[in-house]
Amino acid sequence: MSQSFFSTHQATLDGALKAIRERTCWSAYPEIPSGKVYGESAKDDGQKAFESRLNRPFNLAGHPGAAGGVGAEVSPYGTALGVKYPKADVGSLVAAADKAWQGWKRADVETRVGVCLEILHRLNRRSFEMALAVMHTTGQGWMMAFQAGGPHAQDRGLEAVAYAYDEMTRTPRQATWSKRVGKEETVTLRKTFRIVPRGIALTIGCSTFPTWNGYPGIFASLATGNAVIVKPHPGAILPLAITVEVARDVLREAGFDPNVITLAADEVNAPITKDLVQRPEVKIIDYTGGSAFGEWIEQNAKHAVVYTEKAGVNSIIIDSVENLKAMTGNLAFTLCLYSGQMCTTSQNIFIPREGIETGEGHKSFDEVAGAIVKAVDWFLGDPKRAAEVLGAIQNENTARRVDEAKQQGLPVLRESTPVANEGFPKARVRSPIILKAESKDRAKFAGEMFGPIAYIIATANTDESIRLAADIAREKGAITCAIYSTDSKVIEKAEDAAADAGVPLSCNLTGSIWVNQAAAFSDFHVSGANPAGNATLCDSAFVANRFRIVQSRIPVTN
Amino acid sequence: MSQSFFSTHQATLDGALKAIRERTCWSAYPEIPSGKVYGESAKDDGQKAFESRLNRPFNLAGHPGAAGGVGAEVSPYGTALGVKYPKADVGSLVAAADKAWQGWKRADVETRVGVCLEILHRLNRRSFEMALAVMHTTGQGWMMAFQAGGPHAQDRGLEAVAYAYDEMTRTPRQATWSKRVGKEETVTLRKTFRIVPRGIALTIGCSTFPTWNGYPGIFASLATGNAVIVKPHPGAILPLAITVEVARDVLREAGFDPNVITLAADEVNAPITKDLVQRPEVKIIDYTGGSAFGEWIEQNAKHAVVYTEKAGVNSIIIDSVENLKAMTGNLAFTLCLYSGQMCTTSQNIFIPREGIETGEGHKSFDEVAGAIVKAVDWFLGDPKRAAEVLGAIQNENTARRVDEAKQQGLPVLRESTPVANEGFPKARVRSPIILKAESKDRAKFAGEMFGPIAYIIATANTDESIRLAADIAREKGAITCAIYSTDSKVIEKAEDAAADAGVPLSCNLTGSIWVNQAAAFSDFHVSGANPAGNATLCDSAFVANRFRIVQSRIPVTN
Repeated sequence: MSQSFFSTHQATLDGALKAIRERTCWSAYPEIPSGKVYGESAKDDGQKAFESRLNRPFNLAGHPGAAGGVGAEVSPYGTALGVKYPKADVGSLVAAADKAWQGWKRADVETRVGVCLEILHRLNRRSFEMALAVMHTTGQGWMMAFQAGGPHAQDRGLEAVAYAYDEMTRTPRQATWSKRVGKEETVTLRKTFRIVPRGIALTIGCSTFPTWNGYPGIFASLATGNAVIVKPHPGAILPLAITVEVARDVLREAGFDPNVITLAADEVNAPITKDLVQRPEVKIIDYTGGSAFGEWIEQNAKHAVVYTEKAGVNSIIIDSVENLKAMTGNLAFTLCLYSGQMCTTSQNIFIPREGIETGEGHKSFDEVAGAIVKAVDWFLGDPKRAAEVLGAIQNENTARRVDEAKQQGLPVLRESTPVANEGFPKARVRSPIILKAESKDRAKFAGEMFGPIAYIIATANTDESIRLAADIAREKGAITCAIYSTDSKVIEKAEDAAADAGVPLSCNLTGSIWVNQAAAFSDFHVSGANPAGNATLCDSAFVANRFRIVQSRIPVTN
Repeated sequence: MSQSFFSTHQATLDGALKAIRERTCWSAYPEIPSGKVYGESAKDDGQKAFESRLNRPFNLAGHPGAAGGVGAEVSPYGTALGVKYPKADVGSLVAAADKAWQGWKRADVETRVGVCLEILHRLNRRSFEMALAVMHTTGQGWMMAFQAGGPHAQDRGLEAVAYAYDEMTRTPRQATWSKRVGKEETVTLRKTFRIVPRGIALTIGCSTFPTWNGYPGIFASLATGNAVIVKPHPGAILPLAITVEVARDVLREAGFDPNVITLAADEVNAPITKDLVQRPEVKIIDYTGGSAFGEWIEQNAKHAVVYTEKAGVNSIIIDSVENLKAMTGNLAFTLCLYSGQMCTTSQNIFIPREGIETGEGHKSFDEVAGAIVKAVDWFLGDPKRAAEVLGAIQNENTARRVDEAKQQGLPVLRESTPVANEGFPKARVRSPIILKAESKDRAKFAGEMFGPIAYIIATANTDESIRLAADIAREKGAITCAIYSTDSKVIEKAEDAAADAGVPLSCNLTGSIWVNQAAAFSDFHVSGANPAGNATLCDSAFVANRFRIVQSRIPVTN
């Protein structure tokens, strides 16, 4: 059964293995939500499946804990989901995972990888249901929820499976070691190398990209033979609950105890994450979320291998540009997309206070800043497009941060105007607020202001812009950085500074590619080289320490 | 210059890359101390070179700190070395390393790897000098000091370089990413992936195998572009000082600041290791040594990536055997070699109290235990062989531990008799003491008793022997485990138990192969899966997190 999962999906795995070596454009799961790809009834079926989840218990057969005991998700679009998940205490989750692990750890590499590939395949078929689950927990617009929550997340999960498979098969299972040790003596040993998984892995999900950020750790740990406890953010449980349900079905069919993967749901007023992190049985932790809790995990989870993706302060450096409008149009989408709630969204835009050179001549600081504001205004001028691109604000605290941003006392270049959402009148919506700063205001823009809040900052020159972007990345972390320059020397200087600060650089993006996008199999998301996180999605360091190799050797008797 | 180092040694690198994939028997550096291999004058030259080191300052041109300021090594064979090394405060070591790193981190992969290969090559030519430096700091016998301190250590260093090269070249330097994003739009990006080293690496050496255990971390860090501060054990500075000297020569010739590698020598009464560990600039730490300090590092160095090899309690399980004498002869060498001061030496020998089956019929517990003692006695009966195999006791505390072992109150099967060393009458020598225990004496044998102290323990049966060996490995750590059994079912059971406890298993070793041997390119030394250490020598997890990849992407304009 499970060996056949491996053969069924071997071409997909081979494609992924090739892609991570070449890092060219490749994807296993179609990002177009088309009936031709997913079946003509897929969208309706997904809608029905999502609706049938609402206002009732989410049951997982054989799962530890009391069915339907916990969950308080409210859609950022305005209504409570009313879904109640199994409520399990930490002790019984750990005990169930450990029991299930005993069988899973003995499975061979192909069996485990086959199970992972089948889970991803079935998740792909459920992408329409997942889109709505992601949309109504994170606040993403529908199209983004489909792509980032569905196929793109599945691609990132597959990428982790490919790295895990590559790593586990790097060492042969057996080797014959033969050494001449004297004139008449040769020692010959048969050596067997066994993959030994670490034990229980914990994946702590975030509220904005529960699947995209969660799948790499979940699938890397599963493929390498660990049992996984999935701890979703209390505001975004449903996408990971569906994931766990699908995974348990496949595990059961393959003859394993489904508690190889379990759901640790909780509510904001009774959090269980710290208890889980501190359990000595937890040997691997994947975390995506705020910096404060991430740092607490890094400092306190000394018994576990820890992978974090925290937050950062992302910059755009504007030095010179061929086509001002092409740049401002690109930036407007970057600032508006999902209301700036991506960990890759830019916050600080540095422009020399003397202005910049463009294809249409010199433009003053105010002209460039004004063009950016105008591009955002234009972009949000169409209510349908605005509603789809902005989505909704996931967290009340983010909305409050936007509302209070003016209290910093900086000049306002663009107010966060109300934007109506026709489809969801009760949606929590904020458009970007854009503030003006000088480099001396560093204390005000150097901290992370999560959400649709941007600063356009006047600097002495591009050298200062680069220095500020790099220093802030080094001190506070950064996940993206962009530069616009027509001078290759300036770009080289920025590349050196960005590399030293551990932040990936995007240069001169215009058209349909944005700094806040990261493509599986090609872009390394988070470098692990600054405080924004200690790991990347995905490389071999992300998988190689989730298992160990333990050998046995015995003389070969001829 | 440095690019030519790479081409000069490319065949060696290719051999190593093949070997780590196949894990068959391979070595780059000849282990036979023969004039035909190393040159007819090599032995004499090495002797002279070693003697010229004694009783004078060990100068390193351009090295931070006051020349000839620190060092108090005394040979376990009886005389003070009188070598004085540069005495540098921690601040100036870190500052010099950081300054030198600025150039090293920008060098390309081939340049850095070429420099590492040339260093290893030159160290190989110095193996006779190194043998004496290792012998007179660690107490190893001359032949072991030559092999383990010279070519075997160089092989382990090369293995680390090969893993590092493999890992750094897994991702292409550039890729062209092209995606159709609309009916008439295709986005094409050129992506550049840069290896970004972490910064300053610290290697903390041990007193027993300063080069063999030190080279993997030193060369893994160097090859991946980090600056390395080498902190030798105060009792075994000279082997690593010579290593640093050779490395600095090669770095200088290749056009780099030699402070890419520096020596942090100290004395027992004024240790500087904790200060070094706590410096925030130190991003990587490799540690070999006692468990207590290793655990302190694991718990406290949260700003660094930490690789440890600590200590363990190693077991031998005797279930049944074809040829009793072949087994006892093998065990005798294991127990005597370097007076049990290898981290791989067995401490606990478990035998069923009802005895075992052998090719010559049933043998009682006392008969088997007696045969082991007799084999040790026979082995040490030849004074020349005894002196060479036992070597000397590195540390006074180890000698004291042997002398006080009887205070545990267990029956003594073999006293630690004096053994004269003709060549070095003042050598600190102890032959193995062998004590008899019952499984209920667990508290007495479950802790590490470093040095030539062994327990032969009577158990209810082999199941209990396996359980005890595995439980102690899981709780205290273990680096080796051996079993003797003629029953493949028993071996399978032991393999499962050993894998679960993270300890490599050696089965039925007789003749010229011993449980305490680990071969580079084939055996994974320390699994990283029990408290004996968190890493292995060598795998990709050992190298992959010493650098990060930071990318840059820019549209390709046609």
